[in-house]
Amino acid sequence: MYIGIDLGGTNIAVGLVDKDGNIINKASTPTLSERPWQEIVADMAFLTQKVTEEAGYSIADIEAVGIGSPGSVDNANGIIAYACNIGFDNSPVADEFRKYINVPVNLENDANAAAFGEYVKNGEESPSFVFVTLGTGVGGGIVLDGKIYRGFNGVGAEIGHTVIIVDGIKCNCGRSGCWEAYASVTALINQTKKKMEENPDSLMHSVTEKYHEVNGRVAFEAMEMGDEAAKTVCENYIRYIGEGLVNIINTFQPEKVVIGGGISKEGDTLLTPIKEFIEKNDYNKHMKKTKIEIAKLYNDAGIIGAAMSAMK
Amino acid sequence: MYIGIDLGGTNIAVGLVDKDGNIINKASTPTLSERPWQEIVADMAFLTQKVTEEAGYSIADIEAVGIGSPGSVDNANGIIAYACNIGFDNSPVADEFRKYINVPVNLENDANAAAFGEYVKNGEESPSFVFVTLGTGVGGGIVLDGKIYRGFNGVGAEIGHTVIIVDGIKCNCGRSGCWEAYASVTALINQTKKKMEENPDSLMHSVTEKYHEVNGRVAFEAMEMGDEAAKTVCENYIRYIGEGLVNIINTFQPEKVVIGGGISKEGDTLLTPIKEFIEKNDYNKHMKKTKIEIAKLYNDAGIIGAAMSAMK
Repeated sequence: MYIGIDLGGTNIAVGLVDKDGNIINKASTPTLSERPWQEIVADMAFLTQKVTEEAGYSIADIEAVGIGSPGSVDNANGIIAYACNIGFDNSPVADEFRKYINVPVNLENDANAAAFGEYVKNGEESPSFVFVTLGTGVGGGIVLDGKIYRGFNGVGAEIGHTVIIVDGIKCNCGRSGCWEAYASVTALINQTKKKMEENPDSLMHSVTEKYHEVNGRVAFEAMEMGDEAAKTVCENYIRYIGEGLVNIINTFQPEKVVIGGGISKEGDTLLTPIKEFIEKNDYNKHMKKTKIEIAKLYNDAGIIGAAMSAMK
Repeated sequence: MYIGIDLGGTNIAVGLVDKDGNIINKASTPTLSERPWQEIVADMAFLTQKVTEEAGYSIADIEAVGIGSPGSVDNANGIIAYACNIGFDNSPVADEFRKYINVPVNLENDANAAAFGEYVKNGEESPSFVFVTLGTGVGGGIVLDGKIYRGFNGVGAEIGHTVIIVDGIKCNCGRSGCWEAYASVTALINQTKKKMEENPDSLMHSVTEKYHEVNGRVAFEAMEMGDEAAKTVCENYIRYIGEGLVNIINTFQPEKVVIGGGISKEGDTLLTPIKEFIEKNDYNKHMKKTKIEIAKLYNDAGIIGAAMSAMK
């Protein structure tokens, strides 16, 4: 058995995972990210014991533990170099965890871990596989020949921070015009708000009342109700997603691209126009084409991917 | 001994290359790209014999032949699927070549072959290596763990055709705003011409008279003479190069990026501000940084890379 830990800014989620990538049991606790990082690691170990014993196993059954963490991860040395929302600063997380439970520990960047989870469950046999998450930010992971691609320093695959509009919208990373600033759900919400201001009669206003906020669903729901302004928002947003995806495809020509994150729940409403855009715009006119799919694991991708990457 | 063939739209260049990647002898002939592709292959075989025998070797000394070709290359089947300037259309180039000289033949995309040449001579021991050519277009090649990255369909690494300005300048590939449309020498020439029109007193006009045309050197030379308008052209152009390079670095975090193509001859005038731009803009603030260098092989990269990729 394996343990997969998805460490987020809000929650620590820990799962007991079998060798086929099925979650047997899981539990979570708030991260409380302001406290010393050693306490966060202690909670990871506590939850590991809990999910294992609750499921009728013992720590002796655990072959390895995988931790997916935000930030810059030094996989070879078991160190989290830096994570902006949690107080890691060259922290020897693997060694600290082994003070509690002495098993092999593998650290991954959280987006890479999620990518590997989708790869194992949704991309196996693809020699080149790219996972893109469209959520609060735009993240991603690249799996080549069955291995997570990390770059020589462990911080590769930051595909959300590739500029698609030079001098465009300011991004949190310091650049302007990053894909994340146009294709994240945060960006969609900003695009929705702007169009709502310009169109006081748009159905987006009544959809917003239902949710008590402008969220990533508002424009899509209003579009389904026939609202033209909402349709423009969705079309532009999908165009931004498409431009970034074609950039990825022209760079990697991966066998498969899987789209995850909150907005991926729109399913075919999102996927069909994205596929059309890619078909028209990618550079490859003469060879086999990349498959584009929606993610299957949603929130479990991080746990499963962390566990599976610890297995390999 | 190995043969490397650099097939271009204008010339066919063939080199006899030793196992360390040194060119022993080379020769070339015009491609005459309108003729039947079989005649082009016949000339490749003729030049192979010529460079080998002139150097005192015989065909029996040739262990393998590598061909770098424009277009979409099906490496596994020895087929050139398509090349826009030469009449290849699912052409079995490897089999055709072996009618003349029966040795193993390896086909590569020309940019990938050049990348591999630079990797062998200039990037060895880098687990991740990206080569970018800034010439008539913007091309590139990616070498990961010592192997050319081709994508699952053989047409990966088209990094010149990643959009950096959505709805920007029309590109030959059909998209708008590709990196190639801003960072190629062709783009620099257009940027120079535009600025010259706006600035009739700029020194760029007198530099142009010397060359009898606006070329990629005009703005750089006039800048060295203290011309402000030329300085603006060069700064903007370098910015465009930098934005694309940071995109590549954020995606791959490669150990090394090597810049080739005509404009790379500007050397430190180009390299120093590019390095500063990358230092300020890349996403990696906490881990080891990518090395940025100028290519060393220039026109020989294609021959050497084609030969070396046939060796491996």
